[in-house]
Amino acid sequence: MNTTESALPLAVSLGDPAGVGPELICEAWARRDSATLPAFFVTGGAGILADAARTRGLIVPVRPIADPAEAAAIFPDALPVLGPDDGPYCPGAPDPAGARLALSSLTRATALAIAGKAGGLVTGPIAKALLAQVGFHHPGQTEFVADACGIVADDAVMLLAGPSLRTVPLTVHVALAEVPRLITTDLIVSRATITARGLQQDFGIAQPRLAITALNPHGGEGGKFGDEEVPIIAPAIAALRAGGIDASGPHSADALFAPHMRGSFDVAICMYHDQALIPIKALDFDQGVNMTLGLPIVRTSPDHGTAFGIAGQRLAHPGAMIAAIRMAGECAKRRAGA
Amino acid sequence: MNTTESALPLAVSLGDPAGVGPELICEAWARRDSATLPAFFVTGGAGILADAARTRGLIVPVRPIADPAEAAAIFPDALPVLGPDDGPYCPGAPDPAGARLALSSLTRATALAIAGKAGGLVTGPIAKALLAQVGFHHPGQTEFVADACGIVADDAVMLLAGPSLRTVPLTVHVALAEVPRLITTDLIVSRATITARGLQQDFGIAQPRLAITALNPHGGEGGKFGDEEVPIIAPAIAALRAGGIDASGPHSADALFAPHMRGSFDVAICMYHDQALIPIKALDFDQGVNMTLGLPIVRTSPDHGTAFGIAGQRLAHPGAMIAAIRMAGECAKRRAGA
Repeated sequence: MNTTESALPLAVSLGDPAGVGPELICEAWARRDSATLPAFFVTGGAGILADAARTRGLIVPVRPIADPAEAAAIFPDALPVLGPDDGPYCPGAPDPAGARLALSSLTRATALAIAGKAGGLVTGPIAKALLAQVGFHHPGQTEFVADACGIVADDAVMLLAGPSLRTVPLTVHVALAEVPRLITTDLIVSRATITARGLQQDFGIAQPRLAITALNPHGGEGGKFGDEEVPIIAPAIAALRAGGIDASGPHSADALFAPHMRGSFDVAICMYHDQALIPIKALDFDQGVNMTLGLPIVRTSPDHGTAFGIAGQRLAHPGAMIAAIRMAGECAKRRAGA
Repeated sequence: MNTTESALPLAVSLGDPAGVGPELICEAWARRDSATLPAFFVTGGAGILADAARTRGLIVPVRPIADPAEAAAIFPDALPVLGPDDGPYCPGAPDPAGARLALSSLTRATALAIAGKAGGLVTGPIAKALLAQVGFHHPGQTEFVADACGIVADDAVMLLAGPSLRTVPLTVHVALAEVPRLITTDLIVSRATITARGLQQDFGIAQPRLAITALNPHGGEGGKFGDEEVPIIAPAIAALRAGGIDASGPHSADALFAPHMRGSFDVAICMYHDQALIPIKALDFDQGVNMTLGLPIVRTSPDHGTAFGIAGQRLAHPGAMIAAIRMAGECAKRRAGA
């Protein structure tokens, strides 16, 4: 029996209909065999998906379904779509109606994953500012999904994963000047612990190796320029090790992502946004996946935005969407088999 | 007439004799033909170089010279060495005598480049803490060379260059917490202007495209998390453009180094150490060159340290040393032809 076929299908949310989400979902379905993708269905947007496929020059039969259980049988021949929500396809021209559709699609896909009707959740890219205008009160999809799962946002850990590298940013959308005071021993220990469990559960790494970065260049060289490494980061590493987690560091971040170093750890725990995102985007731009660890459900997302400026122009690269769907499928299979 | 042969030879300083400098200089000489390197000579360390070559399994005849003018004729057949300074070869075991030799080699090579007896200067890696113990009062070799040239250290700009990318860090060995207050409009304008002139003079780029990074993630998204982009960075870009320099930004640093973006600029001007060094080391680790712009002489260095832990073990990669020598030769030729 093929375990891929027996696993529950993934729920994929449309993302903003004016962005690149719909066309990339169609590309992923069109490449389902060569990319060995698991079965998935989209929550809403049947007409939008059909139009996006045509714009992209793809033949994608879109098939409405009434229950996620129908998706697996249909998936080889058509793109299953669940739910009546739809609208016009206007790539590059976002509006509040599109944002409402994106929110409805996200809400439904999340609920199905939580209810155990979908094996995992893949979220298409949304525009946060537009969503806020239509009543979305979360900083981003990660916090929305965590909230829906009953998980405190702080315990939902953002993992960025590509073929070359996995990184976790401990702080994200905060001013660089705020970063030093936000980094605490407790923050490092709690996020790193969730990360280690996530790599065990979802990636099958029995004893994950965590490389913790320094905050300062060269780790401050013993306090010569910055010393957060000594009172804050080193004690966190000691606590993690005492708890049986294979944590190392603090590592000078500039050297950590060099080719000969990348094989020495399974994930880099980074102090701030650019420290974690620069290496992933430099090395794995078109295949970067944003995954949320610490949730009761599997959730991934392509690590790019709506890209309104190139939507509908056959320019958007489907690599990250394909990688996000494949990774969600692999993690869901691992959880189902556990 | 071959211009490479007619150009002045480069002066290469030994670096710390217990580090990887001597063995990598020998590797570079051994690969002079396949790597199409210009003629160079080393200031001091004849015996150390001969021993380092043997340790590395290389056949490198070392030939003393009395004047740089002899180097070009000897270079095809032997590694020219100028000056009597020498010592024992003890890889991995640095000591003050070795540091004194490194300082003497650096001092002599720098003086010859300034005097116009060498076409440019390539500095081997030194250990700053050890040098400080023997009377070296500069933060690093860059500041030493600038001082010897009569240039204020602030006007000597560190350029990191590899096959994929060139970056300039506006701040280097300072605590991350100090970075926001050190970034000023004047600093950006002055360093970027020196950088633009350097790319014209030494790299032959008529109208260099400078990408200026943001300090905050996503450039702060209009002040939502950090706003240094608005009062400090954007005015610097406007001033540079008003002065005829093709500057763009502020660019979100995480996206700037992605493959599709790297072709859109000739150099990235970065706000701090890790922002500039992470992408270079991730992409170009074994070929990274540290070049100083704004000096009356050409000066390059391999972008790595002494690596005492692997010295003498045939493990050190010669790519960066070879790239540093090649780049110095190309820049010297361009200046000589200008």
